[in-house]
Amino acid sequence: MPLSRIYKLHLSPDRKYVKALKNLLGFVPGNLSLYKMAFRHRSIALGIKRGGKNSNERLEFLGDAILGAVVAEVLFKMYPYKEEGFLTEMRSKIVSRVNLNQLGKKLGFNELIEFDPTTVNITSKQSSLLGDAFEALIGAVYLDKGYNFTKDFLIQRIIKPHIDIHTLEQTETNFKSKLIEWCQRHSKDIVFELVPNQEGDNAKLFSIQVLIDNEPMATGIDFNKKSAEKLAAEKTCELLAI
Amino acid sequence: MPLSRIYKLHLSPDRKYVKALKNLLGFVPGNLSLYKMAFRHRSIALGIKRGGKNSNERLEFLGDAILGAVVAEVLFKMYPYKEEGFLTEMRSKIVSRVNLNQLGKKLGFNELIEFDPTTVNITSKQSSLLGDAFEALIGAVYLDKGYNFTKDFLIQRIIKPHIDIHTLEQTETNFKSKLIEWCQRHSKDIVFELVPNQEGDNAKLFSIQVLIDNEPMATGIDFNKKSAEKLAAEKTCELLAI
Repeated sequence: MPLSRIYKLHLSPDRKYVKALKNLLGFVPGNLSLYKMAFRHRSIALGIKRGGKNSNERLEFLGDAILGAVVAEVLFKMYPYKEEGFLTEMRSKIVSRVNLNQLGKKLGFNELIEFDPTTVNITSKQSSLLGDAFEALIGAVYLDKGYNFTKDFLIQRIIKPHIDIHTLEQTETNFKSKLIEWCQRHSKDIVFELVPNQEGDNAKLFSIQVLIDNEPMATGIDFNKKSAEKLAAEKTCELLAI
Repeated sequence: MPLSRIYKLHLSPDRKYVKALKNLLGFVPGNLSLYKMAFRHRSIALGIKRGGKNSNERLEFLGDAILGAVVAEVLFKMYPYKEEGFLTEMRSKIVSRVNLNQLGKKLGFNELIEFDPTTVNITSKQSSLLGDAFEALIGAVYLDKGYNFTKDFLIQRIIKPHIDIHTLEQTETNFKSKLIEWCQRHSKDIVFELVPNQEGDNAKLFSIQVLIDNEPMATGIDFNKKSAEKLAAEKTCELLAI
Protein backbone atom coordinates (compact mmCIF):
# COMPACT_ATOMS: atom_id res chain seq x y z
CA MET A 1 0.00 0.00 0.00
CA PRO A 2 1.64 3.28 -1.04
CA LEU A 3 2.36 5.76 1.74
CA SER A 4 -0.04 8.41 0.42
CA ARG A 5 -2.84 5.89 0.65
CA ILE A 6 -1.96 4.95 4.22
CA TYR A 7 -1.82 8.61 5.12
CA LYS A 8 -5.16 9.40 3.48
CA LEU A 9 -7.01 6.48 5.03
CA HIS A 10 -5.51 6.43 8.53
CA LEU A 11 -3.70 9.63 9.43
CA SER A 12 -5.05 12.60 7.52
CA PRO A 13 -7.58 14.91 9.22
CA ASP A 14 -9.90 13.94 6.33
CA ARG A 15 -9.61 10.20 7.02
CA LYS A 16 -13.30 9.75 7.90
CA TYR A 17 -14.32 11.46 4.69
CA VAL A 18 -11.80 9.46 2.66
CA LYS A 19 -13.16 6.22 4.11
CA ALA A 20 -16.74 7.21 3.31
CA LEU A 21 -15.70 7.98 -0.26
CA LYS A 22 -13.77 4.72 -0.53
CA ASN A 23 -16.87 2.80 0.54
CA LEU A 24 -18.96 4.66 -2.01
CA LEU A 25 -16.53 4.53 -4.91
CA GLY A 26 -14.58 1.35 -4.35
CA PHE A 27 -11.26 3.19 -4.66
CA VAL A 28 -9.25 5.72 -2.66
CA PRO A 29 -9.70 9.12 -4.28
CA GLY A 30 -6.62 10.93 -5.54
CA ASN A 31 -7.45 14.63 -5.53
CA LEU A 32 -9.82 14.98 -2.58
CA SER A 33 -10.76 18.59 -3.32
CA LEU A 34 -12.48 17.50 -6.54
CA TYR A 35 -14.78 15.17 -4.64
CA LYS A 36 -15.51 17.78 -2.01
CA MET A 37 -16.47 20.15 -4.80
CA ALA A 38 -18.73 17.52 -6.38
CA PHE A 39 -20.80 17.41 -3.21
CA ARG A 40 -20.94 21.17 -2.68
CA HIS A 41 -24.26 22.65 -3.75
CA ARG A 42 -24.48 26.20 -5.01
CA SER A 43 -26.62 27.20 -1.98
CA ILE A 44 -23.68 26.68 0.37
CA ALA A 45 -20.94 27.62 -2.09
CA LEU A 46 -22.36 31.12 -2.46
CA GLY A 47 -21.35 31.84 1.14
CA ILE A 48 -17.73 31.06 0.27
CA LYS A 49 -15.40 33.45 -1.56
CA ARG A 50 -15.68 32.89 -5.33
CA GLY A 51 -18.51 30.53 -4.34
CA GLY A 52 -20.27 30.08 -7.69
CA LYS A 53 -17.08 28.67 -9.14
CA ASN A 54 -16.57 26.40 -6.15
CA SER A 55 -19.98 24.74 -6.30
CA ASN A 56 -20.54 21.47 -8.14
CA GLU A 57 -22.16 23.05 -11.20
CA ARG A 58 -19.13 23.07 -13.47
CA LEU A 59 -18.30 19.48 -12.52
CA GLU A 60 -21.92 18.58 -13.23
CA PHE A 61 -21.55 19.98 -16.76
CA LEU A 62 -18.46 17.83 -17.33
CA GLY A 63 -19.84 14.72 -15.62
CA ASP A 64 -23.09 14.89 -17.57
CA ALA A 65 -21.06 14.74 -20.81
CA ILE A 66 -18.84 11.88 -19.64
CA LEU A 67 -21.86 9.92 -18.39
CA GLY A 68 -23.61 10.51 -21.73
CA ALA A 69 -20.61 9.13 -23.61
CA VAL A 70 -20.26 6.03 -21.43
CA VAL A 71 -23.97 5.23 -21.56
CA ALA A 72 -23.96 5.77 -25.34
CA GLU A 73 -21.19 3.19 -25.73
CA VAL A 74 -22.82 0.70 -23.37
CA LEU A 75 -26.08 0.89 -25.35
CA PHE A 76 -24.31 0.89 -28.73
CA LYS A 77 -22.63 -2.39 -27.84
CA MET A 78 -25.53 -3.92 -25.93
CA TYR A 79 -27.99 -3.44 -28.79
CA PRO A 80 -26.08 -4.03 -32.05
CA TYR A 81 -29.26 -4.29 -34.10
CA LYS A 82 -31.22 -1.37 -32.75
CA GLU A 83 -31.48 1.92 -34.58
CA GLU A 84 -30.37 5.32 -33.40
CA GLY A 85 -33.86 6.38 -32.22
CA PHE A 86 -34.07 3.46 -29.81
CA LEU A 87 -30.58 4.15 -28.43
CA THR A 88 -31.41 7.83 -27.88
CA GLU A 89 -34.66 6.98 -26.10
CA MET A 90 -32.96 4.40 -23.88
CA ARG A 91 -30.23 6.83 -22.95
CA SER A 92 -32.75 9.50 -21.91
CA LYS A 93 -34.41 6.95 -19.66
CA ILE A 94 -31.11 6.00 -18.02
CA VAL A 95 -29.83 9.52 -17.46
CA SER A 96 -33.23 11.05 -16.61
CA ARG A 97 -33.17 13.30 -13.58
CA VAL A 98 -35.66 10.98 -11.84
CA ASN A 99 -33.36 8.01 -12.34
CA LEU A 100 -30.21 9.86 -11.29
CA ASN A 101 -31.93 11.28 -8.20
CA GLN A 102 -32.95 7.77 -7.14
CA LEU A 103 -29.40 6.59 -7.73
CA GLY A 104 -27.98 9.41 -5.62
CA LYS A 105 -30.39 8.52 -2.83
CA LYS A 106 -29.54 4.82 -3.01
CA LEU A 107 -25.83 5.62 -2.87
CA GLY A 108 -26.35 7.65 0.31
CA PHE A 109 -25.53 11.07 -1.13
CA ASN A 110 -27.81 12.67 1.50
CA GLU A 111 -24.97 12.21 3.97
CA LEU A 112 -22.35 13.72 1.70
CA ILE A 113 -23.94 16.72 0.00
CA GLU A 114 -23.26 20.09 1.57
CA PHE A 115 -26.16 22.46 1.03
CA ASP A 116 -27.99 25.22 2.82
CA PRO A 117 -31.14 23.61 4.28
CA THR A 118 -32.78 27.01 4.82
CA THR A 119 -33.00 27.57 1.05
CA VAL A 120 -33.04 24.03 -0.37
CA ASN A 121 -35.21 21.03 0.44
CA ILE A 122 -33.27 17.90 -0.47
CA THR A 123 -36.22 15.56 0.07
CA SER A 124 -38.59 17.52 -2.19
CA LYS A 125 -39.60 15.69 -5.34
CA GLN A 126 -38.73 18.81 -7.31
CA SER A 127 -35.18 18.77 -6.03
CA SER A 128 -32.49 17.56 -8.39
CA LEU A 129 -29.70 17.93 -5.82
CA LEU A 130 -28.95 14.21 -5.72
CA GLY A 131 -28.88 13.69 -9.47
CA ASP A 132 -26.82 16.85 -9.99
CA ALA A 133 -24.30 15.66 -7.39
CA PHE A 134 -24.17 12.27 -9.09
CA GLU A 135 -23.17 13.90 -12.37
CA ALA A 136 -20.67 16.14 -10.59
CA LEU A 137 -19.14 13.07 -8.97
CA ILE A 138 -18.62 11.54 -12.42
CA GLY A 139 -16.88 14.77 -13.43
CA ALA A 140 -14.61 14.51 -10.37
CA VAL A 141 -13.76 10.85 -11.02
CA TYR A 142 -12.98 11.72 -14.64
CA LEU A 143 -10.61 14.56 -13.75
CA ASP A 144 -9.01 12.46 -11.03
CA LYS A 145 -8.63 9.17 -12.89
CA GLY A 146 -9.27 9.61 -16.63
CA TYR A 147 -11.82 8.24 -19.07
CA ASN A 148 -11.15 4.52 -19.04
CA PHE A 149 -11.14 4.34 -15.26
CA THR A 150 -14.39 6.33 -15.10
CA LYS A 151 -15.97 4.09 -17.72
CA ASP A 152 -15.05 0.94 -15.76
CA PHE A 153 -16.22 2.54 -12.52
CA LEU A 154 -19.56 3.48 -14.08
CA ILE A 155 -20.13 0.10 -15.66
CA GLN A 156 -18.97 -2.12 -12.78
CA ARG A 157 -19.99 -0.05 -9.80
CA ILE A 158 -23.06 1.85 -11.01
CA ILE A 159 -24.70 0.46 -14.13
CA LYS A 160 -24.41 -3.29 -13.50
CA PRO A 161 -25.50 -3.27 -9.84
CA HIS A 162 -27.98 -0.39 -9.88
CA ILE A 163 -29.50 0.09 -13.33
CA ASP A 164 -31.74 -2.54 -14.82
CA ILE A 165 -31.49 -1.64 -18.49
CA HIS A 166 -33.81 -4.42 -19.64
CA THR A 167 -36.56 -3.28 -17.28
CA LEU A 168 -36.10 0.32 -18.44
CA GLU A 169 -36.49 -0.95 -22.00
CA GLN A 170 -39.98 -2.20 -21.12
CA THR A 171 -41.00 0.94 -19.26
CA GLU A 172 -43.54 2.85 -21.22
CA THR A 173 -42.70 6.49 -21.13
CA ASN A 174 -44.94 8.50 -18.86
CA PHE A 175 -45.25 11.67 -20.89
CA LYS A 176 -46.95 13.67 -18.16
CA SER A 177 -44.14 13.14 -15.65
CA LYS A 178 -41.59 13.58 -18.39
CA LEU A 179 -43.10 16.94 -19.31
CA ILE A 180 -43.45 18.08 -15.70
CA GLU A 181 -39.88 17.06 -14.99
CA TRP A 182 -38.68 18.97 -18.05
CA CYS A 183 -40.55 22.09 -16.92
CA GLN A 184 -39.01 21.82 -13.47
CA ARG A 185 -35.54 21.54 -14.91
CA HIS A 186 -36.07 24.59 -17.08
CA SER A 187 -37.95 26.57 -14.39
CA LYS A 188 -41.15 26.83 -16.39
CA ASP A 189 -44.71 26.82 -15.09
CA ILE A 190 -46.96 24.13 -16.46
CA VAL A 191 -50.76 24.00 -16.29
CA PHE A 192 -53.16 21.36 -17.63
CA GLU A 193 -56.28 23.39 -18.40
CA LEU A 194 -59.76 22.14 -19.21
CA VAL A 195 -60.79 24.13 -22.30
CA PRO A 196 -64.08 24.36 -24.20
CA ASN A 197 -64.43 21.39 -26.48
CA GLN A 198 -63.40 22.39 -29.98
CA GLU A 199 -64.90 19.28 -31.60
CA GLY A 200 -68.48 20.58 -31.31
CA ASP A 201 -70.67 20.14 -28.26
CA ASN A 202 -70.18 16.46 -27.56
CA ALA A 203 -70.49 16.75 -23.79
CA LYS A 204 -68.81 13.42 -23.24
CA LEU A 205 -65.47 14.65 -24.56
CA PHE A 206 -62.89 16.52 -22.50
CA SER A 207 -60.35 18.90 -24.03
CA ILE A 208 -57.22 19.49 -21.99
CA GLN A 209 -54.68 22.04 -23.10
CA VAL A 210 -51.12 22.27 -21.81
CA LEU A 211 -49.92 25.78 -21.01
CA ILE A 212 -46.21 26.35 -20.41
CA ASP A 213 -45.40 29.74 -18.96
CA ASN A 214 -48.88 30.74 -20.13
CA GLU A 215 -48.07 29.88 -23.75
CA PRO A 216 -50.57 27.41 -25.21
CA MET A 217 -49.03 24.11 -26.27
CA ALA A 218 -50.81 20.96 -27.51
CA THR A 219 -54.37 19.90 -26.69
CA GLY A 220 -55.63 16.39 -25.97
CA ILE A 221 -59.24 15.29 -26.40
CA ASP A 222 -60.65 12.10 -24.89
CA PHE A 223 -63.60 10.64 -23.02
CA ASN A 224 -62.02 11.10 -19.61
CA LYS A 225 -59.87 13.86 -18.22
CA LYS A 226 -56.91 11.62 -17.39
CA SER A 227 -56.59 10.29 -20.93
CA ALA A 228 -57.02 13.77 -22.38
CA GLU A 229 -54.21 15.02 -20.13
CA LYS A 230 -51.99 12.11 -21.11
CA LEU A 231 -52.57 12.79 -24.78
CA ALA A 232 -51.94 16.53 -24.39
CA ALA A 233 -48.71 15.75 -22.54
CA GLU A 234 -47.58 13.30 -25.22
CA LYS A 235 -48.31 15.78 -28.00
CA THR A 236 -46.51 18.56 -26.14
CA CYS A 237 -43.47 16.33 -25.58
CA GLU A 238 -43.42 15.65 -29.28
CA LEU A 239 -43.84 19.33 -30.12
CA LEU A 240 -40.97 20.31 -27.84
CA ALA A 241 -38.91 17.32 -28.98
CA ILE A 242 -38.41 16.33 -25.33
CA MET B 1 6.38 0.26 -40.47
CA PRO B 2 4.31 -2.79 -39.55
CA LEU B 3 3.35 -5.12 -42.38
CA SER B 4 -0.40 -4.52 -42.01
CA ARG B 5 0.22 -0.81 -42.55
CA ILE B 6 2.29 -1.44 -45.69
CA TYR B 7 -0.40 -3.75 -46.97
CA LYS B 8 -3.20 -1.29 -46.27
CA LEU B 9 -1.43 1.70 -47.85
CA HIS B 10 0.21 0.06 -50.85
CA LEU B 11 -1.21 -3.34 -51.71
CA SER B 12 -4.80 -3.69 -50.56
CA PRO B 13 -7.61 -3.13 -53.10
CA ASP B 14 -8.74 -0.33 -50.74
CA ARG B 15 -5.36 1.46 -50.84
CA LYS B 16 -6.73 4.60 -52.49
CA TYR B 17 -9.44 4.88 -49.87
CA VAL B 18 -6.94 4.19 -47.07
CA LYS B 19 -4.67 6.96 -48.38
CA ALA B 20 -7.58 9.41 -48.58
CA LEU B 21 -8.49 8.56 -44.99
CA LYS B 22 -4.89 8.88 -43.85
CA ASN B 23 -4.72 12.35 -45.37
CA LEU B 24 -7.93 13.31 -43.65
CA LEU B 25 -7.23 11.78 -40.26
CA GLY B 26 -3.47 11.91 -39.95
CA PHE B 27 -3.29 8.21 -39.09
CA VAL B 28 -3.81 4.90 -40.85
CA PRO B 29 -7.20 3.54 -39.83
CA GLY B 30 -7.34 0.16 -38.15
CA ASN B 31 -10.78 -1.26 -38.81
CA LEU B 32 -11.64 0.11 -42.24
CA SER B 33 -15.24 -1.08 -42.21
CA LEU B 34 -16.02 1.34 -39.37
CA TYR B 35 -14.89 4.30 -41.46
CA LYS B 36 -16.79 3.06 -44.48
CA MET B 37 -19.89 2.87 -42.32
CA ALA B 38 -19.32 6.40 -40.99
CA PHE B 39 -19.57 7.75 -44.53
CA ARG B 40 -22.60 5.66 -45.55
CA HIS B 41 -25.81 7.67 -45.49
CA ARG B 42 -29.12 6.01 -44.78
CA SER B 43 -30.35 6.80 -48.31
CA ILE B 44 -27.83 4.42 -49.83
CA ALA B 45 -27.73 1.94 -46.94
CA LEU B 46 -31.43 1.19 -47.36
CA GLY B 47 -30.64 -0.52 -50.65
CA ILE B 48 -28.31 -2.92 -48.85
CA LYS B 49 -29.48 -5.91 -46.82
CA ARG B 50 -30.06 -4.89 -43.18
CA GLY B 51 -29.35 -1.40 -44.50
CA GLY B 52 -30.70 0.71 -41.66
CA LYS B 53 -28.19 -0.90 -39.34
CA ASN B 54 -25.38 -0.42 -41.82
CA SER B 55 -25.85 3.31 -42.27
CA ASN B 56 -23.91 5.84 -40.24
CA GLU B 57 -26.78 6.67 -37.87
CA ARG B 58 -25.73 4.48 -34.96
CA LEU B 59 -22.14 5.71 -35.23
CA GLU B 60 -23.49 9.25 -35.30
CA PHE B 61 -25.27 8.60 -31.98
CA LEU B 62 -22.01 7.38 -30.43
CA GLY B 63 -19.81 10.04 -32.02
CA ASP B 64 -22.13 12.85 -30.92
CA ALA B 65 -21.70 11.68 -27.31
CA ILE B 66 -17.91 11.36 -27.54
CA LEU B 67 -17.61 14.76 -29.21
CA GLY B 68 -19.81 16.26 -26.49
CA ALA B 69 -17.54 14.85 -23.79
CA VAL B 70 -14.31 16.04 -25.42
CA VAL B 71 -15.67 19.53 -26.08
CA ALA B 72 -16.98 19.68 -22.50
CA GLU B 73 -13.51 18.95 -21.14
CA VAL B 74 -11.79 21.39 -23.49
CA LEU B 75 -14.14 24.18 -22.38
CA PHE B 76 -13.99 23.16 -18.71
CA LYS B 77 -10.21 23.53 -18.75
CA MET B 78 -10.05 26.53 -21.09
CA TYR B 79 -12.43 28.62 -18.97
CA PRO B 80 -11.71 27.80 -15.32
CA TYR B 81 -13.65 30.79 -14.04
CA LYS B 82 -16.77 30.56 -16.17
CA GLU B 83 -20.01 29.16 -14.88
CA GLU B 84 -21.91 26.16 -16.19
CA GLY B 85 -24.35 28.27 -18.27
CA PHE B 86 -21.52 29.79 -20.29
CA LEU B 87 -19.90 26.38 -20.87
CA THR B 88 -23.21 24.90 -22.06
CA GLU B 89 -23.82 27.81 -24.44
CA MET B 90 -20.30 27.59 -25.86
CA ARG B 91 -20.61 23.87 -26.40
CA SER B 92 -23.88 24.29 -28.33
CA LYS B 93 -22.15 26.82 -30.59
CA ILE B 94 -19.23 24.46 -31.27
CA VAL B 95 -21.29 21.35 -31.95
CA SER B 96 -24.15 23.14 -33.75
CA ARG B 97 -25.25 21.44 -36.95
CA VAL B 98 -24.27 24.56 -38.92
CA ASN B 99 -20.74 24.44 -37.51
CA LEU B 100 -20.32 20.69 -38.02
CA ASN B 101 -21.66 20.91 -41.57
CA GLN B 102 -19.09 23.59 -42.39
CA LEU B 103 -16.39 21.45 -40.85
CA GLY B 104 -17.44 18.42 -42.90
CA LYS B 105 -17.32 20.55 -46.04
CA LYS B 106 -13.90 21.97 -45.20
CA LEU B 107 -12.55 18.48 -44.57
CA GLY B 108 -13.74 17.35 -48.00
CA PHE B 109 -16.42 14.93 -46.86
CA ASN B 110 -18.32 15.56 -50.12
CA GLU B 111 -15.86 13.19 -51.78
CA LEU B 112 -16.24 10.49 -49.16
CA ILE B 113 -19.92 10.30 -48.29
CA GLU B 114 -21.95 7.63 -50.06
CA PHE B 115 -25.53 8.73 -50.51
CA ASP B 116 -28.33 8.44 -53.01
CA PRO B 117 -28.33 11.72 -54.98
CA THR B 118 -31.83 11.08 -56.30
CA THR B 119 -33.29 11.42 -52.79
CA VAL B 120 -30.78 13.63 -50.99
CA ASN B 121 -29.29 17.00 -51.90
CA ILE B 122 -25.93 17.28 -50.19
CA THR B 123 -25.47 20.96 -51.09
CA SER B 124 -28.83 22.05 -49.72
CA LYS B 125 -28.64 24.30 -46.68
CA GLN B 126 -31.18 22.06 -44.98
CA SER B 127 -28.97 19.03 -45.39
CA SER B 128 -27.13 17.82 -42.33
CA LEU B 129 -25.33 15.02 -44.17
CA LEU B 130 -21.89 16.51 -43.63
CA GLY B 131 -22.31 17.21 -39.94
CA ASP B 132 -23.91 13.82 -39.36
CA ALA B 133 -21.00 12.12 -41.11
CA PHE B 134 -18.57 14.15 -39.02
CA GLU B 135 -20.14 12.82 -35.82
CA ALA B 136 -20.22 9.29 -37.23
CA LEU B 137 -16.52 9.58 -38.05
CA ILE B 138 -15.81 10.46 -34.40
CA GLY B 139 -17.76 7.33 -33.44
CA ALA B 140 -15.63 5.26 -35.81
CA VAL B 141 -12.34 6.71 -34.53
CA TYR B 142 -13.49 6.03 -30.97
CA LEU B 143 -14.34 2.38 -31.62
CA ASP B 144 -11.14 1.93 -33.61
CA LYS B 145 -8.69 3.72 -31.31
CA GLY B 146 -10.27 4.46 -27.91
CA TYR B 147 -11.08 7.60 -25.98
CA ASN B 148 -7.68 9.17 -25.38
CA PHE B 149 -6.65 8.79 -29.01
CA THR B 150 -9.96 10.28 -30.16
CA LYS B 151 -9.59 13.17 -27.75
CA ASP B 152 -6.08 13.96 -29.01
CA PHE B 153 -7.23 13.60 -32.59
CA LEU B 154 -10.13 15.99 -32.02
CA ILE B 155 -8.04 18.57 -30.20
CA GLN B 156 -4.95 18.52 -32.42
CA ARG B 157 -6.49 17.80 -35.80
CA ILE B 158 -9.93 19.39 -35.60
CA ILE B 159 -10.42 21.90 -32.80
CA LYS B 160 -7.06 23.69 -32.87
CA PRO B 161 -6.78 24.12 -36.66
CA HIS B 162 -10.46 24.53 -37.56
CA ILE B 163 -12.47 25.91 -34.66
CA ASP B 164 -11.87 29.42 -33.43
CA ILE B 165 -13.33 29.15 -29.95
CA HIS B 166 -12.58 32.77 -29.02
CA THR B 167 -14.42 34.06 -32.08
CA LEU B 168 -17.38 31.79 -31.33
CA GLU B 169 -17.37 33.26 -27.83
CA GLN B 170 -18.03 36.70 -29.32
CA THR B 171 -20.71 35.50 -31.76
CA GLU B 172 -24.10 36.67 -30.69
CA THR B 173 -26.58 33.89 -31.08
CA ASN B 174 -28.86 34.28 -34.07
CA PHE B 175 -32.10 32.96 -32.62
CA LYS B 176 -33.96 32.88 -35.90
CA SER B 177 -31.44 30.58 -37.60
CA LYS B 178 -31.11 28.58 -34.41
CA LEU B 179 -34.85 28.01 -34.33
CA ILE B 180 -35.10 27.21 -38.04
CA GLU B 181 -32.21 24.79 -37.75
CA TRP B 182 -33.87 23.10 -34.77
CA CYS B 183 -37.13 22.72 -36.72
CA GLN B 184 -35.24 21.19 -39.64
CA ARG B 185 -33.52 18.71 -37.37
CA HIS B 186 -36.83 17.68 -35.83
CA SER B 187 -38.76 17.76 -39.12
CA LYS B 188 -41.15 20.46 -38.00
CA ASP B 189 -42.73 23.22 -40.08
CA ILE B 190 -42.09 26.73 -38.95
CA VAL B 191 -43.94 29.87 -39.98
CA PHE B 192 -43.40 33.49 -38.89
CA GLU B 193 -46.90 34.98 -39.15
CA LEU B 194 -47.93 38.61 -39.02
CA VAL B 195 -50.82 38.70 -36.55
CA PRO B 196 -53.21 41.49 -35.53
CA ASN B 197 -51.52 43.71 -33.02
CA GLN B 198 -52.62 42.75 -29.53
CA GLU B 199 -51.26 45.92 -27.93
CA GLY B 200 -54.13 48.07 -29.20
CA ASP B 201 -54.22 49.76 -32.58
CA ASN B 202 -50.80 51.34 -32.64
CA ALA B 203 -50.31 51.02 -36.38
CA LYS B 204 -46.55 51.46 -36.06
CA LEU B 205 -46.13 48.18 -34.19
CA PHE B 206 -45.80 44.77 -35.83
CA SER B 207 -46.75 41.51 -34.09
CA ILE B 208 -45.09 38.38 -35.40
CA GLN B 209 -46.08 35.01 -34.07
CA VAL B 210 -44.07 31.82 -34.51
CA LEU B 211 -46.09 28.75 -35.47
CA ILE B 212 -44.44 25.34 -35.24
CA ASP B 213 -46.42 22.57 -36.91
CA ASN B 214 -49.36 24.99 -36.73
CA GLU B 215 -49.11 25.24 -32.93
CA PRO B 216 -48.79 28.85 -31.79
CA MET B 217 -45.55 29.60 -29.97
CA ALA B 218 -44.23 32.98 -28.77
CA THR B 219 -45.05 36.39 -30.27
CA GLY B 220 -42.68 39.32 -30.77
CA ILE B 221 -43.78 42.94 -31.07
CA ASP B 222 -41.58 45.71 -32.42
CA PHE B 223 -41.53 48.73 -34.72
CA ASN B 224 -40.25 46.76 -37.68
CA LYS B 225 -41.00 43.28 -38.92
CA LYS B 226 -37.41 42.03 -38.71
CA SER B 227 -37.00 42.94 -35.07
CA ALA B 228 -40.41 41.51 -34.22
CA GLU B 229 -39.40 38.25 -35.91
CA LYS B 230 -36.10 38.21 -34.04
CA LEU B 231 -37.86 38.73 -30.74
CA ALA B 232 -40.46 36.05 -31.48
CA ALA B 233 -37.66 33.64 -32.40
CA GLU B 234 -35.73 34.42 -29.23
CA LYS B 235 -38.80 33.94 -27.02
CA THR B 236 -39.65 30.68 -28.77
CA CYS B 237 -36.10 29.40 -28.32
CA GLU B 238 -36.41 30.20 -24.63
CA LEU B 239 -39.83 28.54 -24.43
CA LEU B 240 -38.55 25.39 -26.09
CA ALA B 241 -35.30 25.54 -24.12
CA ILE B 242 -33.36 25.24 -27.36
